[in-house]
Amino acid sequence: MCRWAAWTGEPILLEELLSAPSNSLINQSRHACKAKTDVNADGFGVAWYGDQPFPGQYRDILPAWSDANLRSMAQHICSPLFLAHVRASTGTALSRENAHPFVHENWSFMHNGQVPGYAKVRQQIEGMIAPEHYASRQGSTDSEALFLLALGQGIEHDPLGAMARVVQMVSPLCGAGLRMTAAFSDGKRLFAVRYTNDAIAPSLFVRRNRQGWSVVSEPLDVEGEIWHEVPAGHAIVCDGTTLTQHPFCASSLRAA
Amino acid sequence: MCRWAAWTGEPILLEELLSAPSNSLINQSRHACKAKTDVNADGFGVAWYGDQPFPGQYRDILPAWSDANLRSMAQHICSPLFLAHVRASTGTALSRENAHPFVHENWSFMHNGQVPGYAKVRQQIEGMIAPEHYASRQGSTDSEALFLLALGQGIEHDPLGAMARVVQMVSPLCGAGLRMTAAFSDGKRLFAVRYTNDAIAPSLFVRRNRQGWSVVSEPLDVEGEIWHEVPAGHAIVCDGTTLTQHPFCASSLRAA
Amino acid sequence: MCRWAAWTGEPILLEELLSAPSNSLINQSRHACKAKTDVNADGFGVAWYGDQPFPGQYRDILPAWSDANLRSMAQHICSPLFLAHVRASTGTALSRENAHPFVHENWSFMHNGQVPGYAKVRQQIEGMIAPEHYASRQGSTDSEALFLLALGQGIEHDPLGAMARVVQMVSPLCGAGLRMTAAFSDGKRLFAVRYTNDAIAPSLFVRRNRQGWSVVSEPLDVEGEIWHEVPAGHAIVCDGTTLTQHPFCASSLRAA
Amino acid sequence: MCRWAAWTGEPILLEELLSAPSNSLINQSRHACKAKTDVNADGFGVAWYGDQPFPGQYRDILPAWSDANLRSMAQHICSPLFLAHVRASTGTALSRENAHPFVHENWSFMHNGQVPGYAKVRQQIEGMIAPEHYASRQGSTDSEALFLLALGQGIEHDPLGAMARVVQMVSPLCGAGLRMTAAFSDGKRLFAVRYTNDAIAPSLFVRRNRQGWSVVSEPLDVEGEIWHEVPAGHAIVCDGTTLTQHPFCASSLRAA
Repeated sequence: MCRWAAWTGEPILLEELLSAPSNSLINQSRHACKAKTDVNADGFGVAWYGDQPFPGQYRDILPAWSDANLRSMAQHICSPLFLAHVRASTGTALSRENAHPFVHENWSFMHNGQVPGYAKVRQQIEGMIAPEHYASRQGSTDSEALFLLALGQGIEHDPLGAMARVVQMVSPLCGAGLRMTAAFSDGKRLFAVRYTNDAIAPSLFVRRNRQGWSVVSEPLDVEGEIWHEVPAGHAIVCDGTTLTQHPFCASSLRAA
Repeated sequence: MCRWAAWTGEPILLEELLSAPSNSLINQSRHACKAKTDVNADGFGVAWYGDQPFPGQYRDILPAWSDANLRSMAQHICSPLFLAHVRASTGTALSRENAHPFVHENWSFMHNGQVPGYAKVRQQIEGMIAPEHYASRQGSTDSEALFLLALGQGIEHDPLGAMARVVQMVSPLCGAGLRMTAAFSDGKRLFAVRYTNDAIAPSLFVRRNRQGWSVVSEPLDVEGEIWHEVPAGHAIVCDGTTLTQHPFCASSLRAA
Repeated sequence: MCRWAAWTGEPILLEELLSAPSNSLINQSRHACKAKTDVNADGFGVAWYGDQPFPGQYRDILPAWSDANLRSMAQHICSPLFLAHVRASTGTALSRENAHPFVHENWSFMHNGQVPGYAKVRQQIEGMIAPEHYASRQGSTDSEALFLLALGQGIEHDPLGAMARVVQMVSPLCGAGLRMTAAFSDGKRLFAVRYTNDAIAPSLFVRRNRQGWSVVSEPLDVEGEIWHEVPAGHAIVCDGTTLTQHPFCASSLRAA
Repeated sequence: MCRWAAWTGEPILLEELLSAPSNSLINQSRHACKAKTDVNADGFGVAWYGDQPFPGQYRDILPAWSDANLRSMAQHICSPLFLAHVRASTGTALSRENAHPFVHENWSFMHNGQVPGYAKVRQQIEGMIAPEHYASRQGSTDSEALFLLALGQGIEHDPLGAMARVVQMVSPLCGAGLRMTAAFSDGKRLFAVRYTNDAIAPSLFVRRNRQGWSVVSEPLDVEGEIWHEVPAGHAIVCDGTTLTQHPFCASSLRAA
């Protein structure tokens, strides 16, 4: 299990999510409140959009709280759309390549959750990745595999549909226990999904503030603005000033 | 604050202290019980004695729990005398050079505690290190400085006296709040001290088992063998099968 | 392209191969003589056999010349059989998981060479790995894939035959340009192969000295003892005091 | 010895100096042309000015050529004034804290050269650093010490004079062999000095192009625009569109 936070809206410094709030993502790397694992210190990463058609990416294997580079970057990089993640490994190796967010061309993706029994179904899952996307496979995580699968399912034209099809491909292989909240972006819109095929879905929250949307695995603070909890089996799309909520693989959820 | 464990006795694998016990040092890197900081994930290190006249040394900046090299070394390196440490930085940088144990020729040293206001007195403290030992200064911690000072105070011929003189040199500079448990060795004997010049001394425990002595900042398990708590203002010396306990800077303690 | 060195014989310190010779493996990390790339600074690793039924393993991503841990370990770890490697990446990521030697139970493996067009054939090659060995796949290199394939081809009972079958499986996929020297061990015997399916095979040398065999990608020194160059299309087996040389996939070589 | 490159002028992407030119700084990390050591792979760093009153800073211990984070940052960070450095250690440890550029408030500094016999004079040099700047001492290099000394010599009001006074303080301690090219900035102006107290001064070049100044330890390419070699015993100041050249410690140079 991991923790993550994303932003879309007016350009802000990364530190607005990463270090400034009382329950900032960096603080969650040491003491998360709503996570299965309270310490999320198996690496971290950030992907941010700027003037290039593809996002910048910074990932490392240290705990987020101890990385001086991250602190400095968070104070200097200003972006209208970024994803940030602190990792708690569920078994795969500690490496930069296994740190989220993952990036492919203009797309970025990060994930909290697990594919149950991943070690047993990994080879099958990897075999389903489109060859043209497999060359981008750098690490060994379930998370990166889900992302590469989604690329092959037409994420460009139907982002939520592509991600739903990935769930439908993977769920029969791994059985009950597939849990995920994930955020992803094409550089314009920010998507997030909350799903499980059993009883427990990881948490997902969103709030409107400072001319933008914060989408997070757990609230960054407890006071002030109000956080909306996205229900399990739902997705949200933040497109400029508009946020819409949609069912996401709801039938799978009901069937579970 | 940090956590540490040391062994002297029959040769054992490092894993006997590092990973096997229920409250092993690696487990303490994630969740220490008796420490001011429960997460001790700012690097780790081990120094072990073998056939060479100087100890082997392995230090890195990852959390101990996530370092595959450490796991493998702990399964393969067998030693009659070793020191192991997991760090929680009190402000100085995360680097291998700041990870304990520190080594100089046949001596090794590790430390839990703090020199209060260290940033302000550091330059003075470093100025007191003997020039012939200053060349060994690799990092920037108070801990390494204490060790280098002790080398200059005749640690070779009077280990406990040298360390006591260091306390007496540093204590007036930094004032109340100097707290330390430290373990050090010349490759034959294992020394440990517990000291504070105010009310709170970090914990220090020792037990006899498996033909040797485990000296630790907190017990490695709660069942079975009995742990002896070394009182504040005392030192222990493990010399072969013999353990002796001595007053250590007791007058400073009383005066505080 | 990479550089590597292996030892079997009387127990010696790792430094005898890693740092002591004039053209030691650590020196080769900065300036190799016979390699396609003279700088081999994309990580390193060592696997050594001792009292355990499986080898110890130490791998990191720094250049070998700058790793203080490696220097210390090389001075303290003594072994009758070990493999050591310095890496020059041919495209896959810099990570500990991509550093050689790779280890599976009692087996270890390291490699110099390349699978041409690996990015294109990787998914196919990975699909051929036996499911029970795929769970051991930690990284993304061609080298680790070759090793895991060999495990599935019966390396335990027919080491050279298994490796030859791997070559015959991979060669048709990747076409001309498959080049390799590899060393591998079960903890008792040391094997090395030299192969190409086109004109240029990476170099492979062996010598008898100090009651053992040094098997290397290039000589560790130029004076004194005599190095024997193993011809392309051949393998050697060091079994105790005996060294035997065998044809290895020689027909493929002739056909190329 | 190290390699470095700095820019002041129109905002450009870091990659314009770091990776795009034929002899880019990243290429120099593997094969420098005019350096005492051709491999400069003991870490790297960059400091860039943007909207904040202090520069951003990114430093790591890998070779620059193998750091994916650096590649991505160089493609995304655009700055009117930045310093970049690849390190070849002259003895001090490999750590982020020892990587250039060093930063203090709005000032940044990087260096190529050496203080001869540094291990012997280090404690004396550190003792001369003003206490209010010593708290910023994170590493152990001569380079960082020179910078902290300059802060205490009034760099704010007299940058070149302060640096000259540092040379005059250090030169008598270390004797002949003090060699340096250094670049430093307050966020508005870019300064560079070239000095030696013996016969050999490290190289220093500057050119005007793309509405700005590139100041480098060796030319980034050999074609096209013309590089001006700054003579030993001189400094340059790039202030907006103006470049001026000044004598720097020229009397020391003559005396040597």
